[in-house]
Amino acid sequence: MAKPLFKQIALIGIGLIGSSLGHVIRERGLAGRVSGFAQTPETREKALALRVVDEVHETAADAVRGADLVILCTPVGAFAAVAAEIGPLLAPGTIVTDVGSVKESVVTQVAPHMPVGVHLIPGHPVAGTEQSGPEAGFAELFQNRWCILTPMDGTDPEQIEKLAAFWRACGSDVEFMKPDHHDLVLAITSHIPHLIAYNIVGTADDLGKVTASEVIKYSAGGFRDFTRIAASDPTMWRDVFIHNKDAVLEMLGRFTEDLTDLQRAIRRGDSDRLFEIFTNTRSIRKRIIDAGQETEAPDFGRHSGGS
Amino acid sequence: MAKPLFKQIALIGIGLIGSSLGHVIRERGLAGRVSGFAQTPETREKALALRVVDEVHETAADAVRGADLVILCTPVGAFAAVAAEIGPLLAPGTIVTDVGSVKESVVTQVAPHMPVGVHLIPGHPVAGTEQSGPEAGFAELFQNRWCILTPMDGTDPEQIEKLAAFWRACGSDVEFMKPDHHDLVLAITSHIPHLIAYNIVGTADDLGKVTASEVIKYSAGGFRDFTRIAASDPTMWRDVFIHNKDAVLEMLGRFTEDLTDLQRAIRRGDSDRLFEIFTNTRSIRKRIIDAGQETEAPDFGRHSGGS
Repeated sequence: MAKPLFKQIALIGIGLIGSSLGHVIRERGLAGRVSGFAQTPETREKALALRVVDEVHETAADAVRGADLVILCTPVGAFAAVAAEIGPLLAPGTIVTDVGSVKESVVTQVAPHMPVGVHLIPGHPVAGTEQSGPEAGFAELFQNRWCILTPMDGTDPEQIEKLAAFWRACGSDVEFMKPDHHDLVLAITSHIPHLIAYNIVGTADDLGKVTASEVIKYSAGGFRDFTRIAASDPTMWRDVFIHNKDAVLEMLGRFTEDLTDLQRAIRRGDSDRLFEIFTNTRSIRKRIIDAGQETEAPDFGRHSGGS
Repeated sequence: MAKPLFKQIALIGIGLIGSSLGHVIRERGLAGRVSGFAQTPETREKALALRVVDEVHETAADAVRGADLVILCTPVGAFAAVAAEIGPLLAPGTIVTDVGSVKESVVTQVAPHMPVGVHLIPGHPVAGTEQSGPEAGFAELFQNRWCILTPMDGTDPEQIEKLAAFWRACGSDVEFMKPDHHDLVLAITSHIPHLIAYNIVGTADDLGKVTASEVIKYSAGGFRDFTRIAASDPTMWRDVFIHNKDAVLEMLGRFTEDLTDLQRAIRRGDSDRLFEIFTNTRSIRKRIIDAGQETEAPDFGRHSGGS
C-alpha cells in the first residue's frame, strides 16, 4: 500500500458523513490513523465498534491533537464553537476542512479562530442519504459524487491540491467555486427541494378532510418520494436554513412566483400553458441522466436491494 | 388454468398502464382475449409486438366490440369523446371502468354516454412510474398497490365485486371511496407533489445566477428526486390538473400557507420552529415504511438494478 496521504485525520462529528469518511479512509489507507470526536457516549461506542475511527475522544480538542487533516462533520450550527475550541491546539501546516452544505457561513464562523499557518479550505461533498447516525455510513457514499471546495483567496495552492487529492481518493470528482456562488447553487439544487419536501409532508399531516392514515396509505402516487427527503436529519437541515438564509429566501421567492403562475393556469383551465411547462421539465430529467447523476431505471419505490 | 374472469377485455389506450394491464392479464389468464385501441400506428404496432393485446384497432369503437370489460386507459381529458364513441356499441352487462387519477370527472364525462344495462364503475390503480408509452409497461406494476374503486350509488354490488376480483387478480388491494373524497386524497398524495416537482424543476431551469448545467451537475443534493416526478407524462398530468381543479387549488392553498410560515421562520432565524417541523415529518416517513408502501433502504439515486 502506498504512503497514506495524511498522518492522522481527525473527524469532528461521526454521523452519516463522518462515519462514511472513516470507512473509506480505512478501506483505502488514506491516513496513518483516524481520531474522532462525538458528543454522546453512544455514538463514541458505535464509532469504535464500527471501526470507523482508531480512537475516539470526548472533546473535539482532544481529537485534533496530532492531526494534519481535521474534517468538521457536525451540523453547521456547531462550527463556531468547535473552531474556537480546537483553534489553539492546531499545529502549523494542518489543513482544516468541513463537509457542510453551506459555505459562506464556514468562512465567517471558522476562519477567525484559525491560527497562522493553518490552512482552512471549506468543502462540501454533494452526497448523502435520508438516514443519519454512524450506522448509516458506508465507504461508497462519495463514489462518483461531486465534492465542491471553496478555498478563500490567498490559500496555498499546494494545500488545496492535497485536499483535492484526498477527495479524489475517496472516489469524488472535485470542483471549485466561490463560497457565495456555492450557496446559491445549493439553495436551488438541494435546500429548496428539502424545504418543499418538509413543507408538503407537514401540510399532509394536518388536513381536516383527509386523514394522515389515508395520506400514508395512498402515498405511492408521488407523496412518498417527498417523505424520503423530509426524513433527513432535522438538526442538520435546521442549521442549513439558518446559515443560508439569504440564498434560500431568494430562491424561495422565485419558486413561489412560478407556483403562482402555475396556480393561475390551473384556475383558468389553461391547458396549453400546463402542457408547455410539463414538457420542458421532462427534458431536464433527461439531461441529468445523460450527465451520469442518475440512472434511467424507473423508480416506483420498491427496490429490494437498497443502494 | 381456471376459467378467465372475462371473455374479452378492451384496453382503450395502450400506454404505461394499458400495456401493464395487457401483460398481467395475459400472464395470469384473466381474459379469453384482449382487444386494444391506440391512436397512433406506432403504438398499435408496438402493442402487438409486445403481445400486450391479441388484436389492435384504429378506433375505440372497433376495440370494444364483443368486450365484457372495457378499461379506459387514455388521459382523462379524452374520456368524454371516447365514451360518446363507444357508448352505442356496448352490450348490456358490460362493465366499463377506467384508470384515471381523478374520479368525479369520470362520472361527469362518461356516465351520460352509458346505455342502460352497462355498469360504469370508475377506478384508479395507485401505481405508476415516471416513464410512459407501451414499452414502459410491466406485469408487476399493480402488485401490492392500492386500487381505489369509486362506484356510484345504485351500482349492482355483484358487478363491483367482479371488477374488484379482477384487480385483486392483478395483485392489487382494492379499496372503496366516494369520487369526491378520492379526488381530495389524491390531490394531496399525488397531484400537489407532482405540481410542486414540475414547478421547482421549471424554476431551476430559468435562473439568472445559477446555470442549468450547474443545476444538473449538482442535482444529487435533492433536486434530482423532483426531476423524476417531473418527468411524468405531460398530457396525463395536464388533464389531471384541469379535471381536479377544485381539490388541487384547495390543497395548494394549504401548502402555500404552510410554506409562508416556514419562510417566516427562516427569515426570523427561528431555529426551534424549524427543528419542530423537520422532526414531525420524519415520523411520517416511518409510518409509510411501516405501512408497507416503501422500503427502508436508503436511496441516493444510484440503483443499478432498476425496479
